Amino acid sequence: MPYQPPVQDLMFCIEHLSHWEQVSALGTYSDYDLSDIVAALEAYARFCSEQIAPLSHIGDTLGAQFDNGRVTMPDGDRHAYAQFIEMGWQALTHPPEHGGMGLPRAVGAAAVEMLNAADMSFGLCPLLTDGAIEALLLTGSDEQKATYLEPLISGRWSGTMNLTEPQAGSDLGRVATKAAQRDDGSYGISGTKIFITYGAHDLTENIIHLVLARTPDAPAGPKGLSLFIVPQTMVKLDGSLGARNSVNCASIEHKLGVRASPTAVLQYDDATGFLIGEENSGLEYMFIMMNAARFSVGVQGIATSDRAYQRALAYARDRVQSRPVNGQSKDAVAIIEHPDVRRMLMRMRSLTEGGRAMAAATAGLLDVAHHQNNPEMAALAEFMVPLVKGFCTERAVEVASLGVQIHGGMGFIEETGAAQHYRDARILPIYEGTTAIQANDLLGRKVMRDGGETARLFATRIAETETLLAQGDATLQAVGASLAQARGAFDEALNWMLDNSRHDIDAAFAGSVPFLMLAGNLAAGWKLGKSALAAQAARDTGQDTPFMAQKIATALFFAEHILPDCAAEHTRILHGFRSLLDAAFPE
Amino acid sequence: MPYQPPVQDLMFCIEHLSHWEQVSALGTYSDYDLSDIVAALEAYARFCSEQIAPLSHIGDTLGAQFDNGRVTMPDGDRHAYAQFIEMGWQALTHPPEHGGMGLPRAVGAAAVEMLNAADMSFGLCPLLTDGAIEALLLTGSDEQKATYLEPLISGRWSGTMNLTEPQAGSDLGRVATKAAQRDDGSYGISGTKIFITYGAHDLTENIIHLVLARTPDAPAGPKGLSLFIVPQTMVKLDGSLGARNSVNCASIEHKLGVRASPTAVLQYDDATGFLIGEENSGLEYMFIMMNAARFSVGVQGIATSDRAYQRALAYARDRVQSRPVNGQSKDAVAIIEHPDVRRMLMRMRSLTEGGRAMAAATAGLLDVAHHQNNPEMAALAEFMVPLVKGFCTERAVEVASLGVQIHGGMGFIEETGAAQHYRDARILPIYEGTTAIQANDLLGRKVMRDGGETARLFATRIAETETLLAQGDATLQAVGASLAQARGAFDEALNWMLDNSRHDIDAAFAGSVPFLMLAGNLAAGWKLGKSALAAQAARDTGQDTPFMAQKIATALFFAEHILPDCAAEHTRILHGFRSLLDAAFPE
Repeated sequence: MPYQPPVQDLMFCIEHLSHWEQVSALGTYSDYDLSDIVAALEAYARFCSEQIAPLSHIGDTLGAQFDNGRVTMPDGDRHAYAQFIEMGWQALTHPPEHGGMGLPRAVGAAAVEMLNAADMSFGLCPLLTDGAIEALLLTGSDEQKATYLEPLISGRWSGTMNLTEPQAGSDLGRVATKAAQRDDGSYGISGTKIFITYGAHDLTENIIHLVLARTPDAPAGPKGLSLFIVPQTMVKLDGSLGARNSVNCASIEHKLGVRASPTAVLQYDDATGFLIGEENSGLEYMFIMMNAARFSVGVQGIATSDRAYQRALAYARDRVQSRPVNGQSKDAVAIIEHPDVRRMLMRMRSLTEGGRAMAAATAGLLDVAHHQNNPEMAALAEFMVPLVKGFCTERAVEVASLGVQIHGGMGFIEETGAAQHYRDARILPIYEGTTAIQANDLLGRKVMRDGGETARLFATRIAETETLLAQGDATLQAVGASLAQARGAFDEALNWMLDNSRHDIDAAFAGSVPFLMLAGNLAAGWKLGKSALAAQAARDTGQDTPFMAQKIATALFFAEHILPDCAAEHTRILHGFRSLLDAAFPE
Repeated sequence: MPYQPPVQDLMFCIEHLSHWEQVSALGTYSDYDLSDIVAALEAYARFCSEQIAPLSHIGDTLGAQFDNGRVTMPDGDRHAYAQFIEMGWQALTHPPEHGGMGLPRAVGAAAVEMLNAADMSFGLCPLLTDGAIEALLLTGSDEQKATYLEPLISGRWSGTMNLTEPQAGSDLGRVATKAAQRDDGSYGISGTKIFITYGAHDLTENIIHLVLARTPDAPAGPKGLSLFIVPQTMVKLDGSLGARNSVNCASIEHKLGVRASPTAVLQYDDATGFLIGEENSGLEYMFIMMNAARFSVGVQGIATSDRAYQRALAYARDRVQSRPVNGQSKDAVAIIEHPDVRRMLMRMRSLTEGGRAMAAATAGLLDVAHHQNNPEMAALAEFMVPLVKGFCTERAVEVASLGVQIHGGMGFIEETGAAQHYRDARILPIYEGTTAIQANDLLGRKVMRDGGETARLFATRIAETETLLAQGDATLQAVGASLAQARGAFDEALNWMLDNSRHDIDAAFAGSVPFLMLAGNLAAGWKLGKSALAAQAARDTGQDTPFMAQKIATALFFAEHILPDCAAEHTRILHGFRSLLDAAFPE
């Protein structure tokens, strides 16, 4: 089934939700207007739908192949990646001074969505490279930037994040890979890293590994980690490639999904590495990379949701089965006419568009926070990142599952394609920090640390949207009323969390994931409420298109079908902690 | 990971929830007491854990193989199935007059759970055979019973259900397979059937297909279907096997899960078939078979949930990662100590035990209804079957997904085994009638047809349990209070449904699946409430074991974490239909 990039909705989100007025006023983006952006997205949309989307099923079937230390990608992927380099797409959001196009982050998010909807396995390579670029931009030395940034931004080299070891997953303090300084200032890196996405492949001529390791005298735990650049192939002074470094791929994993994305075990055997920044600050730097990557993984959730939705929608239009329940036809109809199929499709659509809306808003906040000294927007952006990652990926699993369900028995047959989304989506709530890790980040760093100030600001902004919705027609009022109810649940849960974080930390964290899901749900509903307002404004000024009517319908559906989960999460948080903490698990 | 059959909980459910007093008073079961039953279940538990469970991962890897019309099963499956025949396990619940052991249905449900937890692919073969036996018992002629029942009940032959055709999935009225009567009274069956579970395999010497087909003068639609016995190999008068019938396996499907269970495309080319009962009554007979199969598929959901839970629990005990959030230890702890891992484990456990409790109760109702003229219990049993099928299978997908999540990155690696449950579980809400079909059955046949009488009886029974819980200690009172709230949501939704079924049938069916999920959730919570009462009674009389404490803890967790979803479903039903029905899906 062809993939149709949702350029119109992506542009709607950029224009109305990504704080576009403030973003476009930033000096760094003053050269671009919306017409430039739609042109860029349309070109990328063509590339994604025509060149990448057809690879997805083939790549899933063939997988990345491992043989004697070498990883071979499917031919189609190699060909497409060469085009990706040639067209310069890796450069989209990176700074012009290093060869980038310098487009805003909300545009970057739209691009990440389209590429990953086309083929999540393919999309992971540029996604990790983006993270490496981000880390080098913010923490690399001038020499390191000069050496690595241009080839990475051109897409000629790819980047990886090397955190996990067999004993160190969520708990990075247990990282044991060693880094011994040599006389020439470089370090010898030794250890084993696992789950390294695109840790070995044949798409690029070099791979730049960013590796967490521990120097001999470093303190134990997470504060003794340093970050190193370890090129797969050494780079000479003139930028040309030298000898292979002693980092080797021992194997790749046989995975549930994203099978054309090689997940490598990497063996570092006194490999040459170069320290980034200061010793023992590695985790801090890695978090920079990880925050960008976490946001992008949230966008992958939206991407796979949209692809699953498009596939299910096409099937539901095509498949004729059973007469309508209201007896209006004596003949069987396309299943899209049946209420429950519509219900499932609308769940898929509203969760996808809700995620897209909150991602666009977060991207705008991140941009303004980055380029302006705006602590309020920075705090809101930081608050939103775990919501985008946690909510959009958990819901992506649900959306992909609904996509299978709509296909009935055909959904269980691999040739149909729906099952692949269900398999692919399952990694999203796990990698770049599980949902529980996102929830800890939200509760610990984004809520408790500032005594709930940012969380209250978030709620206040939502209340402002409620006020605007209350001034609209009956539909907008209904959206506003559901939003107010959900926000009320959030306010109470927030107060409860702040209170318990002081005297019963276990009780607070027993509700961390429900709190994340409540806040994420609310954030998506809020941004869809804003979408409905923008769509109504467009209709009021002559743009009364089916698209605008759909934006409002989606917001209403979300308000009536998804937001009610907030009340259930509220109950779990306030009344469910004791039964959770007291439960025993005897042998 | 070894499978530990939950014999203690299965026996608890039989004793306290399966209407045991009434069941054991039935003449047909008067020979058995609870000690016989525990002996039977323990023997079967050993068979399942020792002989079957080790096959699951191997079967998933090897799959059933198709070559030139022949389907070859993995060697381990063939060996295990031979033992299954030798030990006579197919006979467990079938009537002694045909060679069965004649155990009650609740015992049968326990057996189905254990076998399918051990290996769902393997379990499907006996499950379908059970359905064929049930249909023949109730609708076959004496001659047909004499010919087919003994070999089926012994397990030497297997049975299949042949409903689906490419154009006829949920919509069986579109079945086009033809049946032309011959001079000798047999019929020539011609057509193509798809998605036939165990439609071809080499575990048994014969396969008895029950096939829906249409005679030349039959009315169009579902009322023109007749049911035929089509043996894969003809049976001579003396019971020995004759020539192959002209039914051939054209291919088997490449599926997301249950890969060692062959899903066949069967080509009938003037194959010899024998009419069961009357012409044009096929769908009615097939429903007998289907109702038994639907209940069993619900039990498969419980089975795969339990296996996923056991695997996740073992991993969570073993995997050491991160210090506790309450700072009580400076060292990393097993992840089972972390509140969110406990939350996920308790969700898995409470959903599994909730499903098991409602399945045991339903099995008891079915038995009493079948062997006694008890229209009230018959109606309640009929009401419960779509809940067991719909709720337990939808939740099984969630439970299997949580199992992957608890494993973190390891969950995405196929070798770990958690991913297999996630893949296997996905067929459960689809086959033997999708969740929407269960919801239609519930709403149309079990609620609207009797004007809500049975549904009100269901609610009244729950209210009685609430009263008992209110007389207990604080924990039991908390369970009762949550149950009362959920039942209140059900009562309102029921009234709304009954009202709208008269003047806005689309609005009613827009909420059919939310109504099913509400009722299923409530039913599981109810039966866990009864479990808590029984466990408390046991504690009060000296049986103060960890097991009894856990039963109460599980009921409380379910009440506080799962039952709150009932309120959200209530909101969707009463307030979400318009946004669903009005939504447009423009090209």
